[in-house]
Amino acid sequence: MTRPLAVLAFSGGMDSTTLAAQYDAEGYALLLLSFDYGQRHARELESARAVAVHFGAEHHVVDLAAVGRLMPGSALTDPSVDVPDGHYAEESMRVTVVPNRNAIMANVAVGIASARQAAVVALGIHAGDHAVYPDCRPEFVDALRSCVACALDGLHTPRVEAPFVHRSKSEIATLADTLGAPLHLSWSCYRGGARHCGTCGTCTERREAFAEAGLDDPTEYEEVER
Amino acid sequence: MTRPLAVLAFSGGMDSTTLAAQYDAEGYALLLLSFDYGQRHARELESARAVAVHFGAEHHVVDLAAVGRLMPGSALTDPSVDVPDGHYAEESMRVTVVPNRNAIMANVAVGIASARQAAVVALGIHAGDHAVYPDCRPEFVDALRSCVACALDGLHTPRVEAPFVHRSKSEIATLADTLGAPLHLSWSCYRGGARHCGTCGTCTERREAFAEAGLDDPTEYEEVER
Repeated sequence: MTRPLAVLAFSGGMDSTTLAAQYDAEGYALLLLSFDYGQRHARELESARAVAVHFGAEHHVVDLAAVGRLMPGSALTDPSVDVPDGHYAEESMRVTVVPNRNAIMANVAVGIASARQAAVVALGIHAGDHAVYPDCRPEFVDALRSCVACALDGLHTPRVEAPFVHRSKSEIATLADTLGAPLHLSWSCYRGGARHCGTCGTCTERREAFAEAGLDDPTEYEEVER
Repeated sequence: MTRPLAVLAFSGGMDSTTLAAQYDAEGYALLLLSFDYGQRHARELESARAVAVHFGAEHHVVDLAAVGRLMPGSALTDPSVDVPDGHYAEESMRVTVVPNRNAIMANVAVGIASARQAAVVALGIHAGDHAVYPDCRPEFVDALRSCVACALDGLHTPRVEAPFVHRSKSEIATLADTLGAPLHLSWSCYRGGARHCGTCGTCTERREAFAEAGLDDPTEYEEVER
């Protein structure tokens, strides 16, 4: 029997790596989509590939650099804007907002999932994203589902799922531990070093998630302030 | 005084050329976005550029070929599928459906419009698209607006407009005539010849639109059956 297909928006970070582990455990074949707005470092893509290999998953990097170039003012797409240090809830992290980014990635994943007759599109957004990224909130997921239902009326329509939308990052770390997700292969840092910087918003979140979950953090950081 | 900015999904066909003429007449500066799923012929892009030059508009071709390659089975993205002849309402035109294509283009336009502080995102979808393309129907536009309101909550949020969504193609031809839209520069044909083929779905529609509106058709066709 062929396994049903799950299409995942997949950064190769700890959330989407855990998401992949969950759908893999549930018996889905995985199609992992990494999106590149021109900001991706070779190190990030290498990690994403390593996670995909771990799961024996089909993996594609979708080049959206042409879109990123037309969105000035974000640290993730505009090389003239610095990646800030600090916590995600802080105002400074707003420069990491790429307007409508998650909506774009989700809609691309939905289109590909429909063309590929996939059963599900899964998004790894979680409760910690809500403060800064409006397109990572439960209301957005509900609105997206309505939009997808209209856009694919009469065509193959995958379910849209976001199983972590109400979970904290430390709950995701705990789930990853339970599922044996390969978080040692995952990459979170917004900077492009050989190791995680330890101080940018995503590194700060990652470190806190393991600490709050009471789990060993398998990550090597450049700077560790304990 | 700076003119407000309108971001248009712009194929360079007769609908989006008329759309550009309308927003130009209303005093907007135009940012025209042509999307390339890997299917575009040089001839089409040349026409789009010529229309943009006519309006003194900023014009970008957004390369989504990476997305198109992951969507097998459509005549517009898959070179192994032939472009069919005939009328849009016919079943055979379903092979020109790229699932969620309009949703993807609209969401990219919305993201760019937010980053660029544009007043409006305008889509050239019209009543003749409804039968074949579910993401060109009024219900889709409504659902998209709700989704955009969620996705950009707290960020700059452009209005989403689709002024032709209830208009037929012949009404658009009449409006183009009134506005002096440069339809002689526009390109509709799905095939890549030096002239419009005259027989594919979009050529059939284009010819009928001028005929129904009682207007001279400025288009040179390869085959004209009168």
